[in-house]
Parts: sequence; structure tokens; C-alpha cells
Amino acid sequence: MYIGIDLGGTNIAGGLVNEKGDILVKHSIPTGRERGSDLVIEDIYRVIETLIDQNNTGNEVSGIGIGIPGISDPHTGVVLVCVNLNWYNVPLRAKLAEKTSLPIYIDNDATVAGVAEFQVAQAGKYKDAVILTLGTGVGGGILVDGKVVSGHHGIGSELGHMLIGEGLYTCNCGRNGCLETFASSTAIIHYAKYLIAKGNASSMTQATGGDLEKISGEIIFAAAKSGDEVANQVVDRLVKYLSIGIINIVCAIDPEIILLGGGISMAGDYLLDKVNATLETLKYFKASPVAKVEIAKLKNDAGIIGAAMYAMIQQ
Amino acid sequence: MYIGIDLGGTNIAGGLVNEKGDILVKHSIPTGRERGSDLVIEDIYRVIETLIDQNNTGNEVSGIGIGIPGISDPHTGVVLVCVNLNWYNVPLRAKLAEKTSLPIYIDNDATVAGVAEFQVAQAGKYKDAVILTLGTGVGGGILVDGKVVSGHHGIGSELGHMLIGEGLYTCNCGRNGCLETFASSTAIIHYAKYLIAKGNASSMTQATGGDLEKISGEIIFAAAKSGDEVANQVVDRLVKYLSIGIINIVCAIDPEIILLGGGISMAGDYLLDKVNATLETLKYFKASPVAKVEIAKLKNDAGIIGAAMYAMIQQ
Repeated sequence: MYIGIDLGGTNIAGGLVNEKGDILVKHSIPTGRERGSDLVIEDIYRVIETLIDQNNTGNEVSGIGIGIPGISDPHTGVVLVCVNLNWYNVPLRAKLAEKTSLPIYIDNDATVAGVAEFQVAQAGKYKDAVILTLGTGVGGGILVDGKVVSGHHGIGSELGHMLIGEGLYTCNCGRNGCLETFASSTAIIHYAKYLIAKGNASSMTQATGGDLEKISGEIIFAAAKSGDEVANQVVDRLVKYLSIGIINIVCAIDPEIILLGGGISMAGDYLLDKVNATLETLKYFKASPVAKVEIAKLKNDAGIIGAAMYAMIQQ
Repeated sequence: MYIGIDLGGTNIAGGLVNEKGDILVKHSIPTGRERGSDLVIEDIYRVIETLIDQNNTGNEVSGIGIGIPGISDPHTGVVLVCVNLNWYNVPLRAKLAEKTSLPIYIDNDATVAGVAEFQVAQAGKYKDAVILTLGTGVGGGILVDGKVVSGHHGIGSELGHMLIGEGLYTCNCGRNGCLETFASSTAIIHYAKYLIAKGNASSMTQATGGDLEKISGEIIFAAAKSGDEVANQVVDRLVKYLSIGIINIVCAIDPEIILLGGGISMAGDYLLDKVNATLETLKYFKASPVAKVEIAKLKNDAGIIGAAMYAMIQQ
């Protein structure tokens, strides 16, 4: 039995998870990030305690996994940076170890979501695999030879921060050109607004009642499918740069499969067909075998399940 | 005792190499690539045979490693593509296996050069390391958790084909924007000529007696050091894009060290200092620890030694 914690900007979501990746008990409380790391960590421990109390399976909890929305050092358990929690060098593992003697494993939320997807949803059949979570930002999880790659300093698998071109705005990491600024929901919403602000007519103006702040990934894809020209330009740009990101992953580690998760992946086959067509044109030699690209299976709870499974495989 | 073969566009260079990575006997013949793959493979076998004949160490040869200037499938031993040998789907291992029962291991030349560098020159002290060979093209070798990463389909570690921007010319892979078109000697020579052709005055015009075809990486670096403005623009562009390539490797697999090899690495600390300064500005968060970047130690024979060591570690 393992505990998985998905530490987000909005909620601390936890679950008691068995070895097969089933969530038996779930418990979630608001993060309250404005209170600072000490109080948030106390609440993380409260979630852990509640889950342990509710464990009536007869099997003891053997470890705790935590997925964080940022970067940690896997050796020391220190959270190096979580921009949207405003955490810098927070000794998360050491603080929790004052309260529990259970082993604690910490990694990036996209990395542990990848673990859930690979170990549970795909039943461990891939040893060389990558997940790209296309949400507000773009996260990455990498499996090489069956092992999670977090890197020597714990800053690896940050695939959303690959530099691939000249972007229209500065990434929240402070640089220009990150994959995240081309292939996240933030990026496509930004580009849609940009094109409309330039005077291009679009059905999205009507769909949002003229309030462009209401444009969402869903609205963009719906408009694109119905033939809206601006929405199609937005989707085409997303597909182009997402495909460049994918082919760069292929160049580097050539996985067997690349899974697309996160909100944008809800566009499903509509997106996938376009990405696969573009990848054909981006191969570095025509007959090259490249990774299969598929939509991730797990939608909700991937963070909780993945954090628990991460604790299991690290042990 | 192992045999290492460095199959190049010009020579088939082979060596009898001991477990420590010392070359005991060397034998090299011209490739004669225009004759086609069958005759070249016969000559590769001739080199192997000669080396076995000259083995008077009393220890038997246990395997053969071959570094090829292209991409192979490590499972089947088929060379998928070698553009500059004009080889496509050549069953190199199967053809050699008709003549020898020794196990044969084939991988990319930059990958095996990386093995030589990591196993021999760096004495195996790094488990997570990358080599970028900056020559006529840009090659890559990746070590994750002590294992060479060639990828699921054998097309990995092709770091020179990472797409990172809009290039000035089409890469020999047929695409635009490959790291190789910014950070190889071909790329910097092309850019120097381009700037001079645009009418910029440069001491390189005198250094080559007005024959711009004579511009080389060495001439560019010498001119840059002496303050030539065009040469400095060329070096600055190289440094910018090489650093982007390096930071993208950091984002993905975050190695402990990244080594720069190949002709351009002869520029040594002059290049390294500029790259390290640029990397500081490209980190995705200020306090981020990133891979050390150093100049590779092995200059010559890395291909032969690496191919032999590759056979040793694969066995």
C-alpha cells in the first residue's frame, strides 16, 4: 500500500493506492499557497495522516510519493523551484521526515503522471517511453530502459522548456522560445487572441460573446473543426511546434512511444492525425521508424496514482 | 581483446584493443565508398582478419565493434542509413556473420566515440553523460545510468538533428533548422562566407588569399581571437545555438557532464568560456545546477577505441 500526493497550485490531492494502481481512499484539501511552504507542508502531512487512518486494508503503507509542480533534487528531497507555489529551496522531504518515518519520494508532477500512465494504464509494456502533458504549461516524463529519468541534478524531463524557435511572449521561466509557449493551452489561447486583436474575423468572437478572455482550448478546437480560419491557424501552429518538440525527443532518446496528456490532448484523434501527418514531413530520413504517438489513457487522478507508483518503483 | 572498426567516408580504420582501451595493433585501408556496400564490407572483413592474424597477445578476440557514420538498428545490425556512404538498409552484421562467428556490435560513430571518452578517457566516472562531436556534422552520444542510449529503433542520440531555429541552408538530412547547420564546421564556414559575400570586410579575405573556399574553422577562430568583427559574429552565432542545443539536452536528460569533441572543440577554453557564459543566461531558473561542459580528452582513435569498448560493454 502506498500514499500518492499530487501537490497542485489549487489542491493537495492524496490517495491510498494499492500495488495495482487502484485508489482505495481519496482525500483532498485546498493548497492555500499564499500561506507559505511551512503551513502547506503541515497540511500535506495532515492529508497523509488522514489516509493512513483510513487504511483498513490490513496492509501497511510502505512509502509516500509526492508529485510537485516544479523541480526537486531526487537525492536530497529538496524542492528547488516551484514557480506557481513561490517555493525555492524548500526541504520538503526533511520537513515531512520530522513527522513520519515512512520513506518519501519526490519528483515532478508530469514525471509521476508518466509513471501512472506507463505502469498502470499501459500495464508496464513500454520500457522506452515519453509523456508530454499539454496543459496550462507543458510537462514531460521520460522512461529509459524501464527507469524514470529525472537527471543527475533532478532538473531533467522538463521537455516544455526545450528551446525551439522565436516565441510571441516570454515563458514564465523568463526565457523566449520554450516549447511550452507554443504547445500549451496558454500558448494557443494567447495566439488566438493575438490574431483576433490584429483584426482577423473569427467565429470565436461570437462564441465568447465578444469577451476574448473566455477563449479556451475547447473553444479553439471546436472553431477549428467548424472551419474557422483563425482557429485553424492556431491549431496549425500548435501542431507544427508540438511536432518539432516530438521529433527532437526522437532525435535524442528515440522512445518506442510518446503519449500526449493534459487538457489539449482532449482534442484526441483530431489533433493526433495532424501531428502524425506533420511528423512524416519532419523525419530526418524518409524511411525512419519513429515513436508511435498516442493520446494518454489516464485523465483524472494520474497525479495521485503516479506519485504512489513512483514511491513503489523507487523502493 | 576486442576489435574496433571506425568506418568512415575516407578510411576503414581498425584496431586490436585490450580491455583497458589501449590500441595494440592498428590497420587502416581506404573505404572506396563508390564501389558500393558489398565490396566495402569485404574490405571491413579483410581489416578484421588482418588484426586477428596480428594478435600475438595470447588472449583471444571476444567481439567486434563497428562505428558507422549513420544510423543502424542495434537489434538487427542493419545499417538503416549512411548518407555519405550512400548506404540504405545494408545488412552489415548479417554479411559479416557469413565470414566470422565473433559477436558483432554496430552503432553510430559519435555514440561509440562517446563510449571511448566516457569509459577510457574519463575512466568510467560518469554515469549520466553526453558527448557532442562538432565536426563536419554534429554527432551525439548519450549515457544514462551508465548505459549507452541508442533508442528503441536505433535512431536516438542524433543530437545534431535537433530542430532549434530557422537555418540559412538545408541540412543534408533534407530539413531546415538542425543544430548541425548552426554548430558544425560546415555551418560556421557557410556563415563566414555568407557575411563576407554580403560585403562585410574581414581579415579572413587576406588570410585565405581571397579564396573563400579556403576558410576553415581554424581560420575563423584565429580571426575571431585577433578581433575580426565578421569572425566574432560567426563565433557568437555558433556559441548561441550550441548553447541552445546544450540547454535542450539539459532539459531532457540533465546529464552530469557534456563533453565537446570534434574539430571545433580544438578551440578549447576560448570556446568553452563563451559557451559557459551563454549557458548562465539560458538556464530556466537562475539557481539551477546544470551539467558541467568540458572539452573531450580523446582526439584521435576515439572511433576505434570506442567501437572496441562498445563491443565489450554490450557483451
